[in-house]
Amino acid sequence: MVSCGAFRSFLFEYDTPRIVLIRSRKVGLINRGVQLAILAYVIGWVFLWEKGYQETDSVVSSVTTKVKGVTLTNTSTLGPRIWDVADYVIPPQEENSVFVMTNVILTLNQRQDRCPEVGSALILPYDQTECNVKNNCVPGYVSTHSNGIQTGECIPYNNSIKTCEVFAWCPVEDDYHIPKPAFLQEAENFTILVKNNIWYPKFNFSKRNILPTINSTYLKNCIYDSQTDPFCPIFRLGKIVEAAGQNFQEMAVEGGVMALQINWDCNLDRAASHCVPKYSFRRLDNKDSAHTVSPGYNFRFAKYYKDTNGTESRTLVKAYGIRFDIIVFGKAGKFDVIPTMINIGSGLALFGVATVLCDVVVLYCMKKRYYYREKKYKYVEDYELGVNETYGTDS
Amino acid sequence: MVSCGAFRSFLFEYDTPRIVLIRSRKVGLINRGVQLAILAYVIGWVFLWEKGYQETDSVVSSVTTKVKGVTLTNTSTLGPRIWDVADYVIPPQEENSVFVMTNVILTLNQRQDRCPEVGSALILPYDQTECNVKNNCVPGYVSTHSNGIQTGECIPYNNSIKTCEVFAWCPVEDDYHIPKPAFLQEAENFTILVKNNIWYPKFNFSKRNILPTINSTYLKNCIYDSQTDPFCPIFRLGKIVEAAGQNFQEMAVEGGVMALQINWDCNLDRAASHCVPKYSFRRLDNKDSAHTVSPGYNFRFAKYYKDTNGTESRTLVKAYGIRFDIIVFGKAGKFDVIPTMINIGSGLALFGVATVLCDVVVLYCMKKRYYYREKKYKYVEDYELGVNETYGTDS
Amino acid sequence: MVSCGAFRSFLFEYDTPRIVLIRSRKVGLINRGVQLAILAYVIGWVFLWEKGYQETDSVVSSVTTKVKGVTLTNTSTLGPRIWDVADYVIPPQEENSVFVMTNVILTLNQRQDRCPEVGSALILPYDQTECNVKNNCVPGYVSTHSNGIQTGECIPYNNSIKTCEVFAWCPVEDDYHIPKPAFLQEAENFTILVKNNIWYPKFNFSKRNILPTINSTYLKNCIYDSQTDPFCPIFRLGKIVEAAGQNFQEMAVEGGVMALQINWDCNLDRAASHCVPKYSFRRLDNKDSAHTVSPGYNFRFAKYYKDTNGTESRTLVKAYGIRFDIIVFGKAGKFDVIPTMINIGSGLALFGVATVLCDVVVLYCMKKRYYYREKKYKYVEDYELGVNETYGTDS
Repeated sequence: MVSCGAFRSFLFEYDTPRIVLIRSRKVGLINRGVQLAILAYVIGWVFLWEKGYQETDSVVSSVTTKVKGVTLTNTSTLGPRIWDVADYVIPPQEENSVFVMTNVILTLNQRQDRCPEVGSALILPYDQTECNVKNNCVPGYVSTHSNGIQTGECIPYNNSIKTCEVFAWCPVEDDYHIPKPAFLQEAENFTILVKNNIWYPKFNFSKRNILPTINSTYLKNCIYDSQTDPFCPIFRLGKIVEAAGQNFQEMAVEGGVMALQINWDCNLDRAASHCVPKYSFRRLDNKDSAHTVSPGYNFRFAKYYKDTNGTESRTLVKAYGIRFDIIVFGKAGKFDVIPTMINIGSGLALFGVATVLCDVVVLYCMKKRYYYREKKYKYVEDYELGVNETYGTDS
Repeated sequence: MVSCGAFRSFLFEYDTPRIVLIRSRKVGLINRGVQLAILAYVIGWVFLWEKGYQETDSVVSSVTTKVKGVTLTNTSTLGPRIWDVADYVIPPQEENSVFVMTNVILTLNQRQDRCPEVGSALILPYDQTECNVKNNCVPGYVSTHSNGIQTGECIPYNNSIKTCEVFAWCPVEDDYHIPKPAFLQEAENFTILVKNNIWYPKFNFSKRNILPTINSTYLKNCIYDSQTDPFCPIFRLGKIVEAAGQNFQEMAVEGGVMALQINWDCNLDRAASHCVPKYSFRRLDNKDSAHTVSPGYNFRFAKYYKDTNGTESRTLVKAYGIRFDIIVFGKAGKFDVIPTMINIGSGLALFGVATVLCDVVVLYCMKKRYYYREKKYKYVEDYELGVNETYGTDS
Repeated sequence: MVSCGAFRSFLFEYDTPRIVLIRSRKVGLINRGVQLAILAYVIGWVFLWEKGYQETDSVVSSVTTKVKGVTLTNTSTLGPRIWDVADYVIPPQEENSVFVMTNVILTLNQRQDRCPEVGSALILPYDQTECNVKNNCVPGYVSTHSNGIQTGECIPYNNSIKTCEVFAWCPVEDDYHIPKPAFLQEAENFTILVKNNIWYPKFNFSKRNILPTINSTYLKNCIYDSQTDPFCPIFRLGKIVEAAGQNFQEMAVEGGVMALQINWDCNLDRAASHCVPKYSFRRLDNKDSAHTVSPGYNFRFAKYYKDTNGTESRTLVKAYGIRFDIIVFGKAGKFDVIPTMINIGSGLALFGVATVLCDVVVLYCMKKRYYYREKKYKYVEDYELGVNETYGTDS
């Protein structure tokens, strides 16, 4: 039980450590020097560099893209053919990503039927598909790399070899030879418009990458260039790849994945107009000499048709191309009283460290250390150690 | 080398700062006041508000969606036509996102052929496509905004103007006039079922947004309403847009991007049944008067057909619509001994700040400052300063 | 105004707290014990366990996937039919996700037409679609669960019941009976190749999950196994599901969502070859007895055809299947001087806490507490309290 008087006496108490204030050129300079270093760290690093006086927030973003461009190809099987955005962007929309087909292996008029499997050379070392006699083929056999289910027959694949017959989408795809240069090599000149809205929830600050200063006319003619048009949101595919230090025509053959990074670091203590996007580009599937296994990016899809008697046929497309992942990141900061207080607080606490460091120097390293120890410490011997005595240097 | 005796003496040492305990009404009140403020901050802010005694974890989430609804349109070119989910959701599945087509420009029966490019008025200021004589057109010319490759001929586009002929998917799309009101304006009544499973890995706590209290019958009839049905995971598209302060019919015309945010902030010290999703809605592509350049959201795709003699044709679809991005976020907290200790520790450290603050007041601002200084400090002059003397106020 | 002399005297000052050094077996042991515990915490937990001497960074990742496998089905309506990757992966490419269809309800040859709505039993309790007479049906009526717009007629649905006629894609889908076992049950043997490139921006460290030690031959034959092939990036679907403690054949019927997690925690102070991916698997849509409402994962899409006279027809596909979300996470750490300093600093600060704790014990709990208090405190009474007296125990 605490009496009222005790509480009053507690209330009016102020306990503050007793200090030895040593007046010494050497020791004083060390002390002030360390304190200055700490002050410089707190002000310079914590406040100016890391902006410790700011509350920060992470970006919330939405991205839409639109690709533009047409190109003409002319081959013996297809004849002259125009490719536009509906032909080469697959799927037509994704959340933060867009795929542009740059190379293609088409297998036309596939039907559910029986036909020879591709030769072993093409899918080796997976499977032995070549055969001489019927016995080489196992009815019902199927492996991961098969195009279909073996029927057990052995039939001619071409003039020189025979392969096991399969029930499959026939004729089966032969993707041994990748077109080189890339089929849609002119994709280099296609453009991609990236529309990006960002939002900093804590500050309820939103902006989009089509800046208020950009008008319709500019937007319809500009192409992003880090020097001349750093805020144009329209990118030429070739330039993106080049800015990442890659060769577009090489990349177009086997495909790949590119990152289009948008950085929205903003200091909201300054005017909103200073908060602008910074674009940068990277190749994500690093293609170097050490990474020759399974390079590039491709996938298969099909377009399905039905003829008059209801039989389904399809065109199998093995699409090689470049996927552009739009990666939005950034941090906004704005003055706020709480982080300021916290950082000042921990800055003050660091001054205690100055004293600890100096004590080490003064009490252990300096010639006059015994003199300083005498001033700083008051030795109190406890009874139990057998010596009932108190040495106090200042008593 | 440390002798055993020195180590024993080190082991039995306890160093604690010497304290001046000043009994003064004014100074004591200041000191206790500051300490009380710090205590209130530590308990109130750090422990109660920020729940500093809890270990926290971020949410891992999986989202699937299903849209329902049919609508009838009746136009001269298409005749009466029913649109269902397989018609208007493109692509049919995405990871955290679903696109509902609300408006559409169809270009039927396109074939690879030669035909007049659209008039300049429609694609200006991009390109000059109108012409009077053959010389105005450049064979092989193609620009970003072209629909095809110019052949060099000049042919009539309509009764009034002539344009350069292009090799393209013909007839080329004319998207100058956006249908208004939106073609699928009844999409306002479509519903979207969002299935969301979350997992807090650190606590191995998982839950889904179809709460255990929800039964099949309720799920088949309910519609989310922030007041009456806050836990129904089925949303009427019109209500989502309205809750974000937008007009659905306006948005449906040019398209847009909506966020459906699910917040799973959970205090796992309480019963699991208190951990429930909170839904909120935002328009991500902010559409205000300052953002009139390139508004909305649309993309193009095609449906491919083959006629009996194998010629490919396609229906080009320019789809305007609303993309719903489902954004799941949240933080779970649960009592844990380590963050509790850390926060108590830094709370204690702040009491040192109280002393520093009071010292400033007491030693520099108060009338009796010299008296207090005398009590707190022991001045030790060093020899090197030439004064071999020690003033100790308490000696 | 500060005179130069005052500044010099300030510059040469060193203030350090005066210390009582109590030599006592009991108190000393408590003090050293607490200090040892703090030291053990700082070194053991902060430095060894949490690696507080390292700067850390979060992973940036890109993922591509490729599924392989074919299967044969044989039904009365479709006849024998081969399904390959272009048939069962929908959409053909996604950013961090791949969907494999395992079960399917096909509705062939749908046309825009009039036909009977499905019986109420199938879509109850949504709607009453069964009827006896024309009056039961409301022309123009449509609900969320309808397949089309009611025309107002009442026509036979099958031999036993009559339903309201609708204008819809006809015949309407009847998805009451899910095929069981799953239509593409052999999807269990399909494989998925995951190509994952990661990048730690701060350290400019990048790596891919096809390790440099993996050669082409190995890559073409290996299957991931946590014991024998932990670095093979090719996964058998059945094994993924099994590793998550689920039954593939059960999951294949109604579909679901699986996470394929790749963990790239790397200590970059060690050789880069120690930085390898760790794979783990989870089912994201937890399917337990408490979650029977709206289980699984499915969506609808259509393949569109046109016959010779230009009438559009479609095959409606209700695809059940497993979506594999590839989730990449990880943290890299590397020695850095700044976090090391910060952690040493806060470690030192904790030693102050040792003193506070010991003070509590020594000054309030021990028998000789009055003796220690006398040594530690110097009581200073202020004049205002009416007692103009100073008790100093050491004066």
